[in-house]
Amino acid sequence: MSGTINIGDVETYLLALQDRICGEVEDVDTRARFHEDAWERRQGGGGISRALERGAVFEKAGVNFSHVHGDRLPPSASISRPEVAGRSFQAIGVSAVIHPENPFVPTSHMNVRFFVAEKPGAEPVWWFGGGFDLTPCYGFEEDARHWHSVAHTACVEFGEDVYPKFKQWCDDYFFIRHRGEARGIGGLFFDDLNDWGFARCFEFMRSVGDHYMPAYRPIVERRKDTTYSDQQKDFQLYRRGRYVEFNLVYDRGTLFGLQSDGRVESILMSLPPRVQWQYNRKEEPGSDEARLVEEFLTPRDWLE
Amino acid sequence: MSGTINIGDVETYLLALQDRICGEVEDVDTRARFHEDAWERRQGGGGISRALERGAVFEKAGVNFSHVHGDRLPPSASISRPEVAGRSFQAIGVSAVIHPENPFVPTSHMNVRFFVAEKPGAEPVWWFGGGFDLTPCYGFEEDARHWHSVAHTACVEFGEDVYPKFKQWCDDYFFIRHRGEARGIGGLFFDDLNDWGFARCFEFMRSVGDHYMPAYRPIVERRKDTTYSDQQKDFQLYRRGRYVEFNLVYDRGTLFGLQSDGRVESILMSLPPRVQWQYNRKEEPGSDEARLVEEFLTPRDWLE
Repeated sequence: MSGTINIGDVETYLLALQDRICGEVEDVDTRARFHEDAWERRQGGGGISRALERGAVFEKAGVNFSHVHGDRLPPSASISRPEVAGRSFQAIGVSAVIHPENPFVPTSHMNVRFFVAEKPGAEPVWWFGGGFDLTPCYGFEEDARHWHSVAHTACVEFGEDVYPKFKQWCDDYFFIRHRGEARGIGGLFFDDLNDWGFARCFEFMRSVGDHYMPAYRPIVERRKDTTYSDQQKDFQLYRRGRYVEFNLVYDRGTLFGLQSDGRVESILMSLPPRVQWQYNRKEEPGSDEARLVEEFLTPRDWLE
Repeated sequence: MSGTINIGDVETYLLALQDRICGEVEDVDTRARFHEDAWERRQGGGGISRALERGAVFEKAGVNFSHVHGDRLPPSASISRPEVAGRSFQAIGVSAVIHPENPFVPTSHMNVRFFVAEKPGAEPVWWFGGGFDLTPCYGFEEDARHWHSVAHTACVEFGEDVYPKFKQWCDDYFFIRHRGEARGIGGLFFDDLNDWGFARCFEFMRSVGDHYMPAYRPIVERRKDTTYSDQQKDFQLYRRGRYVEFNLVYDRGTLFGLQSDGRVESILMSLPPRVQWQYNRKEEPGSDEARLVEEFLTPRDWLE
């Protein structure tokens, strides 16, 4: 049940999604504006990167659109279809990573993408992937429940099993093995999605893209004016080190990009603006800082 | 020409080397003192980690001794002897990474290590590895020439071809592929060294270990009191991002450690204390910041 694929429609949606996310971020920030760079990839295709830095609410936000094509799909691009490696391909997607200034506002990440792999005389093989996930440095149950309930809403009309499956996949994927900690409180992660036919899969990708800001913005609005101490900011910079560790050691998208001559500045836009590592830091038992790992960065059911 | 190996002698040397380096660092810093943690590895062996943070001269210094053993040597541990993978092994070494406060003082790294891989009924296979390399964020020809001339001195009595070979290996190893930049100005890197017999190879390892502080300390003393602006500190934090990128994406020792249940806090002690990433930062043409990459982070002969 492949259906007729239409990359033009996907592209139209993704460009509008990039605009919408940037518009909402600027709207919340009030002060900073995105700077845009259009770029071309020597091997084919290109993208539009938008970055905002040193805002009133957001220390850094990157929202990237890219549409690249190539002669040979690298094996790492598809988990479940190794047989398509080596085909010519197109990959199109939007990703957003937002690092707030206030340590009480969580970092968020969203990505939606579409791949088509072709070879002469064969049906094109295509799939969607994406998701969104949240990384607090101070945990709030209210925020986690809101985030996951919007994630659930994004999935529910596609079947009752969809949210639990993609929530689990997110928990499994965003796990920092060497720390034995989740990167954040999760959300949704999916890949290699094509078994509902093109139109329905595209609808699902849109639902994920469309629900990102409704999941994130109310949390930002609720926390952005919380006063915080230097110690709390310090903890945020320390926790951002975990984000860097995950993205540079484990994230398939980042490593694939770096190893395949992607545009480095766009790929690494996901890294936090300011970060610190402290040797063998331990949190005060029972403190908010200690509760983060114990209560929030251990995967749990947030819809109970 | 295997010679009789003596791990006890190597251990004695390495523990004394750790003491000496820490002593010199404290001597230069005057204010901060190392904090020591002894640790054990569940799978066998352990180590002594020493960290100094927020000193007057050094923002962070980590000097680690470890002596670990295991049932099965991972294939990544030996480049040129894949056949020893799976043997029982011992690995013993000292590594030091020093991140100064002042942006005019370069970051330095030193590592010396010894491996033995054994199996019943076969001769033990052993080798030495190590080296030292320097990462300035403002380049000074005088410092680079001094660093490399001490590196040359460390090697010269072992043959005229030794310095050029291990200098080249260092340039090749500490290269940040996705940036097309060297991590620093290099120095020495060697691995799988055993063809001079145990006694002579051990002598060479000692020569490398012994020449690290004579290579580094005069540069620290010369630059540590240079006044600097916020912009220059900012550039240092930005350049430290490159250090993180290399260590987490490419460094075999770091990745091997993280993937083999090493002690995370000791492995990641190499990461800089404070770091920043800025999107698509460009340096003013002709500035000291632009000259760093053009004139110093492109491998060249520093002994001319």
